[in-house]
Amino acid sequence: MFKGKLGFLSFFIISAILFVLAPMAFAGEADIELPDLTAVVFNIFGSPVGGLTILNVGLVVCIVGMAFGLMQYTQTKSLPAHKSMLDVSNTIWETCKTYVIQQGKFLAALWILIAACILYYFVGLQGKGMGDVSMILAASILGILGSYGVAWFGIRINTVANSRAAFASLSGKPLNIVDICLRSGMSVGLVLVSIELFFMLAILAYIPPALIGPCFIGFAIGESLGASALRICGGIFTKIADIGSDLMKIIFHLPEDDPKNPGVIADCTGDNAGDSVGPTADGFETYGVTGVALVTFLALAMAGNPEMGGKLVIWIFAMRIMMVITSLISYFVNNAVSASLFGDKKEFDFEHPLTNLVWITSIVSIAITFFASHALLADVPPVGGISLWLALSIIISCGTIAGALIPELTKVFTSTSSRHCAEVIDASRQGGPSLNILSGLVAGNFSAFWEGLAILVLMLIAYLVSQSASIMTLMPEAFQFAAPVFAFGLVAFGFLGMGPVTIAVDSFGPVSDNAQSIYELSRIEVRPDAKEVVKKAYGKEPDFALAKHFLESCDGAGNTFKATAKPVLIGTAVVGATTMVFGIIILLENLFGGAIAKLSLVQPEIILGLLMGGAVIYWFCGASTQAVVTGAYRAVVFIKENINLDKEEADIKDSKEIVKICTIYAQKGMVNIFIVIFFMALALSFFNPYFFIGYLIGIAFFGLYQAIFMANAGGCWDNAKKIVEVDLAEKNTPLHEASVVGDTVGDPFKDTSSVSLNPVIKFTTLFGLLATEIAVTMTNQGLKLGLASVFFVIALIFVYRSFYGMRIAEKG
Amino acid sequence: MFKGKLGFLSFFIISAILFVLAPMAFAGEADIELPDLTAVVFNIFGSPVGGLTILNVGLVVCIVGMAFGLMQYTQTKSLPAHKSMLDVSNTIWETCKTYVIQQGKFLAALWILIAACILYYFVGLQGKGMGDVSMILAASILGILGSYGVAWFGIRINTVANSRAAFASLSGKPLNIVDICLRSGMSVGLVLVSIELFFMLAILAYIPPALIGPCFIGFAIGESLGASALRICGGIFTKIADIGSDLMKIIFHLPEDDPKNPGVIADCTGDNAGDSVGPTADGFETYGVTGVALVTFLALAMAGNPEMGGKLVIWIFAMRIMMVITSLISYFVNNAVSASLFGDKKEFDFEHPLTNLVWITSIVSIAITFFASHALLADVPPVGGISLWLALSIIISCGTIAGALIPELTKVFTSTSSRHCAEVIDASRQGGPSLNILSGLVAGNFSAFWEGLAILVLMLIAYLVSQSASIMTLMPEAFQFAAPVFAFGLVAFGFLGMGPVTIAVDSFGPVSDNAQSIYELSRIEVRPDAKEVVKKAYGKEPDFALAKHFLESCDGAGNTFKATAKPVLIGTAVVGATTMVFGIIILLENLFGGAIAKLSLVQPEIILGLLMGGAVIYWFCGASTQAVVTGAYRAVVFIKENINLDKEEADIKDSKEIVKICTIYAQKGMVNIFIVIFFMALALSFFNPYFFIGYLIGIAFFGLYQAIFMANAGGCWDNAKKIVEVDLAEKNTPLHEASVVGDTVGDPFKDTSSVSLNPVIKFTTLFGLLATEIAVTMTNQGLKLGLASVFFVIALIFVYRSFYGMRIAEKG
Repeated sequence: MFKGKLGFLSFFIISAILFVLAPMAFAGEADIELPDLTAVVFNIFGSPVGGLTILNVGLVVCIVGMAFGLMQYTQTKSLPAHKSMLDVSNTIWETCKTYVIQQGKFLAALWILIAACILYYFVGLQGKGMGDVSMILAASILGILGSYGVAWFGIRINTVANSRAAFASLSGKPLNIVDICLRSGMSVGLVLVSIELFFMLAILAYIPPALIGPCFIGFAIGESLGASALRICGGIFTKIADIGSDLMKIIFHLPEDDPKNPGVIADCTGDNAGDSVGPTADGFETYGVTGVALVTFLALAMAGNPEMGGKLVIWIFAMRIMMVITSLISYFVNNAVSASLFGDKKEFDFEHPLTNLVWITSIVSIAITFFASHALLADVPPVGGISLWLALSIIISCGTIAGALIPELTKVFTSTSSRHCAEVIDASRQGGPSLNILSGLVAGNFSAFWEGLAILVLMLIAYLVSQSASIMTLMPEAFQFAAPVFAFGLVAFGFLGMGPVTIAVDSFGPVSDNAQSIYELSRIEVRPDAKEVVKKAYGKEPDFALAKHFLESCDGAGNTFKATAKPVLIGTAVVGATTMVFGIIILLENLFGGAIAKLSLVQPEIILGLLMGGAVIYWFCGASTQAVVTGAYRAVVFIKENINLDKEEADIKDSKEIVKICTIYAQKGMVNIFIVIFFMALALSFFNPYFFIGYLIGIAFFGLYQAIFMANAGGCWDNAKKIVEVDLAEKNTPLHEASVVGDTVGDPFKDTSSVSLNPVIKFTTLFGLLATEIAVTMTNQGLKLGLASVFFVIALIFVYRSFYGMRIAEKG
Repeated sequence: MFKGKLGFLSFFIISAILFVLAPMAFAGEADIELPDLTAVVFNIFGSPVGGLTILNVGLVVCIVGMAFGLMQYTQTKSLPAHKSMLDVSNTIWETCKTYVIQQGKFLAALWILIAACILYYFVGLQGKGMGDVSMILAASILGILGSYGVAWFGIRINTVANSRAAFASLSGKPLNIVDICLRSGMSVGLVLVSIELFFMLAILAYIPPALIGPCFIGFAIGESLGASALRICGGIFTKIADIGSDLMKIIFHLPEDDPKNPGVIADCTGDNAGDSVGPTADGFETYGVTGVALVTFLALAMAGNPEMGGKLVIWIFAMRIMMVITSLISYFVNNAVSASLFGDKKEFDFEHPLTNLVWITSIVSIAITFFASHALLADVPPVGGISLWLALSIIISCGTIAGALIPELTKVFTSTSSRHCAEVIDASRQGGPSLNILSGLVAGNFSAFWEGLAILVLMLIAYLVSQSASIMTLMPEAFQFAAPVFAFGLVAFGFLGMGPVTIAVDSFGPVSDNAQSIYELSRIEVRPDAKEVVKKAYGKEPDFALAKHFLESCDGAGNTFKATAKPVLIGTAVVGATTMVFGIIILLENLFGGAIAKLSLVQPEIILGLLMGGAVIYWFCGASTQAVVTGAYRAVVFIKENINLDKEEADIKDSKEIVKICTIYAQKGMVNIFIVIFFMALALSFFNPYFFIGYLIGIAFFGLYQAIFMANAGGCWDNAKKIVEVDLAEKNTPLHEASVVGDTVGDPFKDTSSVSLNPVIKFTTLFGLLATEIAVTMTNQGLKLGLASVFFVIALIFVYRSFYGMRIAEKG
């Protein structure tokens, strides 16, 4: 089997041979007419709808958004902190840097795979010139760099904010801590959305029209590639470190974040690599891909009515631009509300300011949706029933409501005050780790039902509204079926209606988590100058016990909101799935006709495709968990052998060794996974495009439930442990041990497998569009099937490797 | 909310009102022409294909099969055993009886729900006379009684065989134990298949032709109802008892089956209630339903060519009849092989004789398939390509191969020699329960991928063969798409090609498990007359240590084969799903036309239906686990409070109390679950039939992966614990504790949730056919939607109750 370096060598040789062989399959490619997406996009923007002005205004708004984000960074940096804390956060930043740089190299290598496909398709098949293709390639690099860049920014501001938040706990005002964490999150959210939108607007406004479509696709694939890799790798890294250090709680009865534990620095790095880099890149990607899916949809479906198509594209971008503004407004309003409600309080529910922010933003967003849609679309002549602007506003609002409702539902299953959390603790009291695990799984299962149902009902409403005359008349005769597809795309779009805030509450967690660790690692309580420094900064004596309590509560709130963001992100992937595959469906319809009937559940291709999707999702969850298990095993062994309980702090050398273990297994795991995902997409689209569509829907739907289930089970265990440690104060009891077991099982559930599903689904779908276009152009059926089989075998080899090459018993 | 008795009262009042109100919806029912399935069936059997003779021969074969089963029972009963062992097995039998009688009452209550729907449809809508309808009702009762009756038979022979197997361990020849367990299983398998086939043949041959179709459906719904209820209830019961007694291993360091532990009797009862009653009823149902699905398919698709249709129905039944004979032959051949291979050996792999049996039977079955198909169908004129008999034989063999291949694959993930099992132990050694759990989940995930893929590939082969001219020309013009549907049904049929053996190796487990418990509970080693009794029976001194070792190994083999049967049973549900929904599709096609396009993945009804299916499967896993968690919690509390470690045996009063706890939570859990399943089917088919079909496919596919995942993760944990206890002999170490945690988490995974999915999917699909027929006949859309909403709300209330009414903190 493919092992180690030899494995990769053979893999690249095989790939190289394939890329040389493949052109033989295209002997007769000139016979097939491909639909020219780009011309359609050109039509839209060639039309005189005043689009360019709006786009330019948007570019300015984006620059304002970015400036705001950078300003927040400077402000955060100027906040006071004790030197010992700054030192720790600097160590974390340095370790993160090493990690992120290594990821960058790996992304560059992955990009080559994608670039080969792009080149192949646009030069080899479409016969575009190298000038054009280099723009498309540049767009894909821009996509990767975007994902990668916002990840850098996130990690940078987090590693500034973490020590400031730790120090702020000594100010006696807990709102100060919340403020710092939230400001850092908001800054990430705004920079991310602004950069994303800036790129998209720039492509729309200033790229030659014929290249807009391909550049969008290239850009989106790039983003997706970056996000998938960063999510998977970060997810594995962080949980190896987290489990490794958590298990020391049971083995040596060490407290949380004990400086003796050499795993703590890796854990702090992991919080950033996993919980900051991952979601930031993921958010960036999600945001872009839903936009690209909608624009592509409009380009295809509205080809016969470019004026209206153009109007709708402008409307969509106008909504996005407004979103930057609404988020900013809501943030400031919420700050004022929080200051008046909690400003001087010592005790309040730390989740409260975050919940307020989400609801304020969603209400403002919905109001703005109706207002802006009316302003831009009220002039469309009515055709009976509700008017177009109203119908579209209702549909988008379904998504925005989902973005606020799903977090609330998530809290029912994961928050520290939920009955599911209480049940986990009750069960563990008599049933130990066994019933703890089972009860947490129950929470995950029930959450999958209710959140799945919520998404379904909102999609149903969107579908029913899409049947109104005002939307149906938009759709050309042949695309009557596409009205709900459009509606689902808009729901996915609406899901992100408060994107910056969704990212902000998600990014709250890594900062609050780090702050708690930094507090312990800095050993502030025994520093001789601590009292003096605090007094100088805040004018009062520090209360160390209270500070620790604040940080713990703040971390609990961070956990909850990290949990709430996950179903929202996966939701967008699934709700948008039908819109994303629309491009492939239209391609097939144009080439072969009868696509709707061929996508029927009575067709074996579809049945088998759905089954294939399920298989791959289950494999994915297993493979990502396996990397964590083996890595965590190695970390535990290393820590057990090297920990020195007599020293006050762990050796930095040992800490670095743990970081190294995390990096190795994260990389190995990710390589296996990514190669399978990539070659599965190629193989299945080459086998049969309808089978492939079944597969895409399969991974989206299986992925949805698996992701919600795993995310919320994990969240529930995590907070159950939190309750035992903080509220019940039963550390080092059998109950605590049981709850630590649940928490560690939940770690890869919620932060590795679950969260990676979203970018993986989107990457497969987007890359699948390209793969299908390549596949349908091949006329040599024998060679095509042969290639598909080889790709499939490569994928299977790496499926095999992802367990048998990653076992604990394996060397290396 | 609906709580306790008040809840049920309100529930029944609401139901009553609905059944009074509903007729109002049928104001215009006479306007709609329903396809008369029954007439088509009549045509087939009216045709002169000599069918009746074959059917009568079949009836005789069935009687022979039943006689063989009964003979085995008598033979087993005459085997020697020590009185103390007989006493224990008698206690188990008495406890089982109480449990099964209670289940019988509950089944009677459930039947009323179904009977109401049947009456409603056939009298209210189809205007059949009471005479006809009472035959259909009788068929449904026959179905339930069949499931229930074979369950009784299974439990009776098991509770005879268990003590004999325990005693045989003292004979010094381990093959004796294997023989007894296998004979008991084979007897159950043959009786089950013979009774099932007898009923079906009798309906075909002697019921008035116009009633054959409805009677089949009634029979199948009855079976499914019985199997679902017995599976769910038994699955919850057995795992409450199992977890309750297993946790005592950690808490008091008690050995397995310690007579001091009052949970052991309940555990033994549970082994029968869960692992014998459940699979027996399930097997009975599976066997019947796949047959009914195929006959219904042929009646519908071959309506225009009744002669060929009749030929194919006869062919299908001839194959089934042959199966009884092949299983018998293979069993005797295997006995001879085992005797010569292992007859005098003291050490051999106990899985070996079972594996041999499976492979011998599959090879014989495949040979007979080709032979019998040739004999019956070779006279069909060839139309080019491969001939009909050959094509059909290949397709069925895909299923038969699956029935032998999937158990082998299951062993890769669960057997004591598998690398996944080894990984679980490696991981637990350093990572304790945390990594034990994660590693077991990985095994489940990977198994879902590989077994899903295996099923997919075999279906693909069947599909490709179904495209041959000989099969395509069979299908009428309008049903060209149905060839693969037919093929999938035949694969499901082939899955059961060695039904009696599949059931036999599945039923091996409860006997070997009980035998081990009885050995301990009888305290044979301290009985003064033990040596004498053994000497009298076997002519030699007993070796107690060796006997225990034999029983442990035998139990390990039982675990593995219990594990291997699960994916086979769920596989039939899924492979057959498209065939089972075919009836509904044709109904819709005849009424409204364009069914294929309306089942397309671009239709929101289908998308939403698939999502709904996923939601319900995840809820189901949660709800069934929750019942186990709460029940196990109560059992653990009771045992902790009442165990007396100074006594040699537990009080029988205490043992009975545990049985009572198991029964209460099993019943409560099952009622909640069943009501949800029932009203979901009604509600969703009333909302929209296409949505409902999406739902059916959704539950089948999500159910498949969830079931494989849970079954194999559970099997892996179970055998990992076995290795620690038996091979590594590390009882009462941290490693052992970790492996017990895994085992107890796996208990409801493999024996509650996973195994219940198969009958639940089949019940929903079959009952859905009736529900859809009722729904499409309603012309008052408003009332229909209203009813659907009420049904849906009832389902949601019980979803809510299935957690919030089953919490540990809840009283009662």
